[in-house]
Amino acid sequence: MQDNNDQLYTEYVALQQKAADLNNASAVLGWDQEVYMPPKGAYFRGRQLATLATQAHELLTSEKYENLLRGLMRLEGLSDTEKHNVRLGNEDFQKNKKLSPAFVDELSRLTSESFNAWVEARKKNDYSLFAPSLSKMIAIKRKQADMYGYKDHPYDALLDEYEKGATVAMLDLVFKKIREDFPVLLDKIKAAPQVSNDCFHQHFSATNQWDFSISVLTRMGFDFDAGRQDYSEHPFTTSFAPSDVRITTRVEESNFASMLWSSIHEGGHALYEQGLPEGQYGLPLGAAASLSIHESQSRLWENCIGRGIDFWKFFYPRLQKYFPRQLEAVTLDTFYKAMNLVSPSLIRTEADEITYHFHVMIRYEIEKALIEGSLQPADLRDKWNELYWQYLGVKPKNDVTGVLQDVHWSHGSFGYFPTYTLGSFYAAQFYSQAKKEITDLPHQVTKGTLDPLLKWLRDKVHQHGRRYTSEELCQKITGQKLDPAYFMRYLNEKYAGIYGIK
Amino acid sequence: MQDNNDQLYTEYVALQQKAADLNNASAVLGWDQEVYMPPKGAYFRGRQLATLATQAHELLTSEKYENLLRGLMRLEGLSDTEKHNVRLGNEDFQKNKKLSPAFVDELSRLTSESFNAWVEARKKNDYSLFAPSLSKMIAIKRKQADMYGYKDHPYDALLDEYEKGATVAMLDLVFKKIREDFPVLLDKIKAAPQVSNDCFHQHFSATNQWDFSISVLTRMGFDFDAGRQDYSEHPFTTSFAPSDVRITTRVEESNFASMLWSSIHEGGHALYEQGLPEGQYGLPLGAAASLSIHESQSRLWENCIGRGIDFWKFFYPRLQKYFPRQLEAVTLDTFYKAMNLVSPSLIRTEADEITYHFHVMIRYEIEKALIEGSLQPADLRDKWNELYWQYLGVKPKNDVTGVLQDVHWSHGSFGYFPTYTLGSFYAAQFYSQAKKEITDLPHQVTKGTLDPLLKWLRDKVHQHGRRYTSEELCQKITGQKLDPAYFMRYLNEKYAGIYGIK
Repeated sequence: MQDNNDQLYTEYVALQQKAADLNNASAVLGWDQEVYMPPKGAYFRGRQLATLATQAHELLTSEKYENLLRGLMRLEGLSDTEKHNVRLGNEDFQKNKKLSPAFVDELSRLTSESFNAWVEARKKNDYSLFAPSLSKMIAIKRKQADMYGYKDHPYDALLDEYEKGATVAMLDLVFKKIREDFPVLLDKIKAAPQVSNDCFHQHFSATNQWDFSISVLTRMGFDFDAGRQDYSEHPFTTSFAPSDVRITTRVEESNFASMLWSSIHEGGHALYEQGLPEGQYGLPLGAAASLSIHESQSRLWENCIGRGIDFWKFFYPRLQKYFPRQLEAVTLDTFYKAMNLVSPSLIRTEADEITYHFHVMIRYEIEKALIEGSLQPADLRDKWNELYWQYLGVKPKNDVTGVLQDVHWSHGSFGYFPTYTLGSFYAAQFYSQAKKEITDLPHQVTKGTLDPLLKWLRDKVHQHGRRYTSEELCQKITGQKLDPAYFMRYLNEKYAGIYGIK
Repeated sequence: MQDNNDQLYTEYVALQQKAADLNNASAVLGWDQEVYMPPKGAYFRGRQLATLATQAHELLTSEKYENLLRGLMRLEGLSDTEKHNVRLGNEDFQKNKKLSPAFVDELSRLTSESFNAWVEARKKNDYSLFAPSLSKMIAIKRKQADMYGYKDHPYDALLDEYEKGATVAMLDLVFKKIREDFPVLLDKIKAAPQVSNDCFHQHFSATNQWDFSISVLTRMGFDFDAGRQDYSEHPFTTSFAPSDVRITTRVEESNFASMLWSSIHEGGHALYEQGLPEGQYGLPLGAAASLSIHESQSRLWENCIGRGIDFWKFFYPRLQKYFPRQLEAVTLDTFYKAMNLVSPSLIRTEADEITYHFHVMIRYEIEKALIEGSLQPADLRDKWNELYWQYLGVKPKNDVTGVLQDVHWSHGSFGYFPTYTLGSFYAAQFYSQAKKEITDLPHQVTKGTLDPLLKWLRDKVHQHGRRYTSEELCQKITGQKLDPAYFMRYLNEKYAGIYGIK
């Protein structure tokens, strides 16, 4: 009997890992597509990605796989880890089999087409070149929602892909809180003496910015023997195995804010991927818990650490050596305030930690409306500009700094954005816990000693893979459910210091 | 009936192209492995490549595929192109089905393992670190030869993979001719006043070498919107579609000879790949005719063009602008002679056009012996050094410049090397024909006008894909069979000029 268990489970693992190989191959092709692929390569790359997606989907919806799962779900005597892998594998299977192979193929092709249209539209700074692909994408995502099924809102079915259990009803409450609480803090900041980020707007050579980012990533614990950083249009992290994790970044020589924190952000994602258990390659327990937990890692590093004064007590003198002419007359205090300047702006990825969440909220509201059909892609640019004016008081000058700024919709990632806000909330709550549990953490950080934090994250988050849901993990780590109060407290304390608010 | 034909053929194309997608995905992973992959990525990359190879092999040996082929082989009314695709597809099928899926998986894994061992061994300059993997590789290639079957020599079965119909019996004759004829010319050269390549051994900045190589590739007609050049340990060309062809190169700042001709060589391969008919993607007629014909393209560009005086009449003044300090006092004649200096040497890829073929012959003899079992991998280093002494009168100082210099065996490519010599022969014969058919070709070349030649090659070679075998293509283009006399005449004329031989 035990032997039979073992054999069934071994076959199950082999099949899962074969599908993972195909998906990781897709990830390599996707990485290359955004990093090095020449423009004319797009068409056949789309085909190739579609074939890989379909082949993986076929394996994971095959009768053979279903029979394995059925057998394993009935069996006693599996280890705890095995049980989790089977349970989660079965959950995925129930979801996957709702999509036909033809649908998966179509979605994958459309994704490549639509990504290329987005790149082209950005190049020409013209949303209307992207709109037709986006229409098709929305239609297919709506179809996907119908195939998955939902109770209240079609968008719920898509949200669930990125954050299990997330719904419009739940997120409406989260964003209501932001709409209510954030303006209070923002008003206090507006009333305080303003800080400046002029020091960022000098010439910072790309090479030196790059080198400095590598030194920061190295100190964070990013293993460059198991990963690399490259340039791409839109920064992202992708993983082919815990031993090969790629991040990308972009650089602007006239704006220091453009690259570094994006590198740290992707570095945070990458540390999670490098920390997943290699022995669980291709299995649920070898994958990240959820997107919001993924985002908690990137934001904890980017914001709680990377925009914190302790971090810069160590790194600022080092940065000054990279840019002596630009920074020798800039004090640490000025530099620290510059990186935390609060001001409504156009670009999400460059927004401060408060107004950032209005950017997310705008996308959330737009996605809801596009998927339910109350907003048409043809009207999207106007709606975007209108919401930016309403929530942030700014008006995009063009499409590149407006509706074309994010890659997500071109990838068909509807329901992804809200995980950014949830991630910030989790990050604040986890970081608060880390400070309780790690001896002298802030002081360690001032010495550039970041490995106790990485070790804590490895232990509390990374090693578990998908064993726990976001909520369960939060409960396990902090002893309570996700509580936005942590993030509000984090913001209030931080900006009180920076803006001298009592 | 016609409809049935169409449907069968359409299904056949779809299945072939799906397999091509998987193989092209493998090519992307292989490219990344040699160009950008971090070292720890090797293990799981090996898995992923094995899965892709197995999946493609499964498709192309499936019952469904066999039935399609059977149906199509019986059908009347296919177009000429369709008939060729079916006939060649069937030939491949008969060959593929001799290998079990487990064998394909094992071979693919071993290839990754063995490539990584070779990289490691090179890094440590120690052949013994590569020998164990090589032993396994030889065992599996010998097994492959047995699975394919052969009449006279197991090596024949492997040769056939790279050059249909090539045999030990045929190649023994070719290399006998080289052993007999080449020394006559070499002796005349030895007796003549020697030329020098001192001008190559100055400091040539990598950036400028790179930029110059890009300008040369551009003028050759390499489409950088449909391809790119990167650095790798060992230069190679790979293609994911005619619209995405990648070449790699390496650079040495203290030796100008190291990079440029290798770029031109890979550029010649790449022009062939970019010129294959996109409409035949994934089908036999969308693939290159054979390795020897592929090599004829790279060598025609590298040697007949790139080491010819006409080419440099145009490019030398341009090169001098890239390296004014190094080259302003070097005459075109000196530079031209430097690039054609004949001297027995250790590194195949840097050898002159005559002694090059002794390098190939050494590998041919070694491969024959390894596969038939008369030479053991443990004795390979000694055998290598002994043959270099015997044929070239030189002794490797270490393994990196000796037995570890080529990537091929780590890839399991036994039977590949002889196509290099055949390629040179075809190149000379094709180039002689091109000069007859293209008005004023040498004069065009002196003006940097290379597109008439490219157009001729597209027309005579590239567009046909695998429609003709090497021999058939040669007959069609030149009106006769492959005749080594063309190459001998080419060498005699060229070196008579350079060395002042009467």
